[in-house]
Amino acid sequence: HRRYTITLLPGDGIGPEVISVAKDVLLLTGSLEGIKYDFREMLLGGAALDATGVPLPEETLSVAKQSDAVLLGAIGGYKWDKNEKHLKPETGLLQIRKGLQVFANLRPATVFPQLVDASTLKREIAEGVDLMVVRELTGGIYFGKPRGFGTNENGEEIGYNTEVYAAHEIDRIAHVAFKIAQKRQGRLCSVDKANVLEASMLWRKRVSAIAQKYPDVELSHMYVDNASMQLIRYPKQFDTIVTNNIFGDILSDEASMITGSIGMLPSASLGDSGPGLFEPIHGSAPDIAGQDKANPFATVLSAAMLLRYGLGEDKAAERIENAVLDTLNRGLRTADIYSAGTKLVGCKQLGEEILKSV
Amino acid sequence: HRRYTITLLPGDGIGPEVISVAKDVLLLTGSLEGIKYDFREMLLGGAALDATGVPLPEETLSVAKQSDAVLLGAIGGYKWDKNEKHLKPETGLLQIRKGLQVFANLRPATVFPQLVDASTLKREIAEGVDLMVVRELTGGIYFGKPRGFGTNENGEEIGYNTEVYAAHEIDRIAHVAFKIAQKRQGRLCSVDKANVLEASMLWRKRVSAIAQKYPDVELSHMYVDNASMQLIRYPKQFDTIVTNNIFGDILSDEASMITGSIGMLPSASLGDSGPGLFEPIHGSAPDIAGQDKANPFATVLSAAMLLRYGLGEDKAAERIENAVLDTLNRGLRTADIYSAGTKLVGCKQLGEEILKSV
Ligand SMILES: CC(C)[C@H](C(=O)O)[C@@H](O)C(=O)O
Ligand SMILES: CC(C)[C@H](C(=O)O)[C@@H](O)C(=O)O
Repeated sequence: HRRYTITLLPGDGIGPEVISVAKDVLLLTGSLEGIKYDFREMLLGGAALDATGVPLPEETLSVAKQSDAVLLGAIGGYKWDKNEKHLKPETGLLQIRKGLQVFANLRPATVFPQLVDASTLKREIAEGVDLMVVRELTGGIYFGKPRGFGTNENGEEIGYNTEVYAAHEIDRIAHVAFKIAQKRQGRLCSVDKANVLEASMLWRKRVSAIAQKYPDVELSHMYVDNASMQLIRYPKQFDTIVTNNIFGDILSDEASMITGSIGMLPSASLGDSGPGLFEPIHGSAPDIAGQDKANPFATVLSAAMLLRYGLGEDKAAERIENAVLDTLNRGLRTADIYSAGTKLVGCKQLGEEILKSV
Repeated sequence: HRRYTITLLPGDGIGPEVISVAKDVLLLTGSLEGIKYDFREMLLGGAALDATGVPLPEETLSVAKQSDAVLLGAIGGYKWDKNEKHLKPETGLLQIRKGLQVFANLRPATVFPQLVDASTLKREIAEGVDLMVVRELTGGIYFGKPRGFGTNENGEEIGYNTEVYAAHEIDRIAHVAFKIAQKRQGRLCSVDKANVLEASMLWRKRVSAIAQKYPDVELSHMYVDNASMQLIRYPKQFDTIVTNNIFGDILSDEASMITGSIGMLPSASLGDSGPGLFEPIHGSAPDIAGQDKANPFATVLSAAMLLRYGLGEDKAAERIENAVLDTLNRGLRTADIYSAGTKLVGCKQLGEEILKSV
């Protein structure tokens, strides 16, 4: 048996419900594939704030750092919305990303054939969409300094942030993106605003230079405003997209909505070494928390990404992905992806059905 | 006769073709509504670079400042794409926005019933979309200082920009947005990233404070990543959106693509006093320039916005808008909006048909 330590961060809202399903799926798959897990469940986000007063307790970060991979549910909720910045659940998320140095955020946007009608895009536009957004996650305007509040020369209040990229930050995310494009269809589109921003000009220059090392990948560049249009006009033109932290935040959410079923989409955040962080792209959905209505597929697929990208356990990952497809094919659906002719089930029951398909 | 001085900036690519149509439409409408125009045609963008070596000649700015309104075609083209920043056509556009201090960019995204099938969104999602993005245009990361290139403490190359807003910059765009929402459906959604950025926290604070003065407008707040999803999921939820320069760049293009016909969409950029700048939201389309294929509707509708928002000539504006609808109803289409059963015409001929409808 291979043995791995996994940190579980259920977080807030529907987080605990979906993490519980993903844990069961990991355990069963593991027993079939010769993998054992030591799970450590830790606090993050609002749950951590309530229990310890901070959104990322030191113990959570140190346990996470010592584990082989981290699986996160979701964070945030109305209760903490008015908190000051350093006491927001979101701040805990940003801190753990930075703390684990997971600079590469992989967000696939895949239209499942079974769910194509859930997209608000016409069938012929949505069908077959399968793209990957590679978002820089530990730099740019999210972390750039100086930042804060102050007064300008007229004594007026100002708020400011710094969008900044250093060469090595661009280079390392570019390498990740080129390598992913190699394993996919070999096309990489780098998105920036190089007609206006110096940070984007450097981005474009470095990405173009690194392209020399990947002659098998076709590199193109696109301005972010155009990319936001092209994702709607003809999403199938994209294979792999690489972009900075804030543009990636916006475009990956846009791309995920194109699929019509964000309850299905996982993500992986990877560093150069150390554990990766895996989480569904959806939020904590406080309105349905605790009601057994959450869709656990995205977290289960995040567990599959954990196996593939975090542990190199491709076979176990595939087993989970196939179980998800099989469960979909058997017509089982949570409310967010329900349509006439399918069977509506709750989060727990869907979890049991996925286990049957494993 | 009322008499106005209008600066025409044909610019590059299809710019001259669409400006020529809009000028004819202004002239005919004017003669029917008792308005006379003194047109001054000036250089901007690539055309200005080729003729004078700079993208915004001083003479263009001073003539524009002295006029009652400015009508712009489009700028940019492959030819100048590799130019250094201060020699890019885009830089001329940013300079004239800043020079005229037109801080409020109004970008309507309207689905024309005649063209609803041009949208890649399903009919029931696209039908009836009628929203207005109010984008801050002379501040934020586009103009913030410090900006540039440098080296960090490791001797590595960096590129950086500053996202910064001062209280009065937020207040004045908020007032514009609330007033527009008042004249529309009375709902304003302010889009920011206040869970991460200090500049956005100040934005949210100021917009919320100003809301007190507009009790008849319902204000909501949305994070930019969520807004990029909601625009696809259910665009009809939006009436008026207000946001910063870079988020507005991205979201207004996304919103326009939802309509499926960006060749139809005008924009207005307004300051506190002085002439407004009116332009179609589409680009210079160098691939079809000079081929009489351009869609002049967006520029003609920009001329209507010029009359309404720039000169207070609402009746003349309405006459133009009705002429556009009538031309559409008569089934006349340029290639970008052509569909079976309609009549395909070139830019010039469409111009003549619009004149018949005026
Ligand atoms: C919650 C928020 C801070 C976060 C981000 O902006 O990165 C989220 O939107 C995401 O994309 O994971
Ligand atoms: C051409 C470019 C500088 C410009 C911008 O980013 O503002 C354009 O995209 C726009 O939206 O008018």
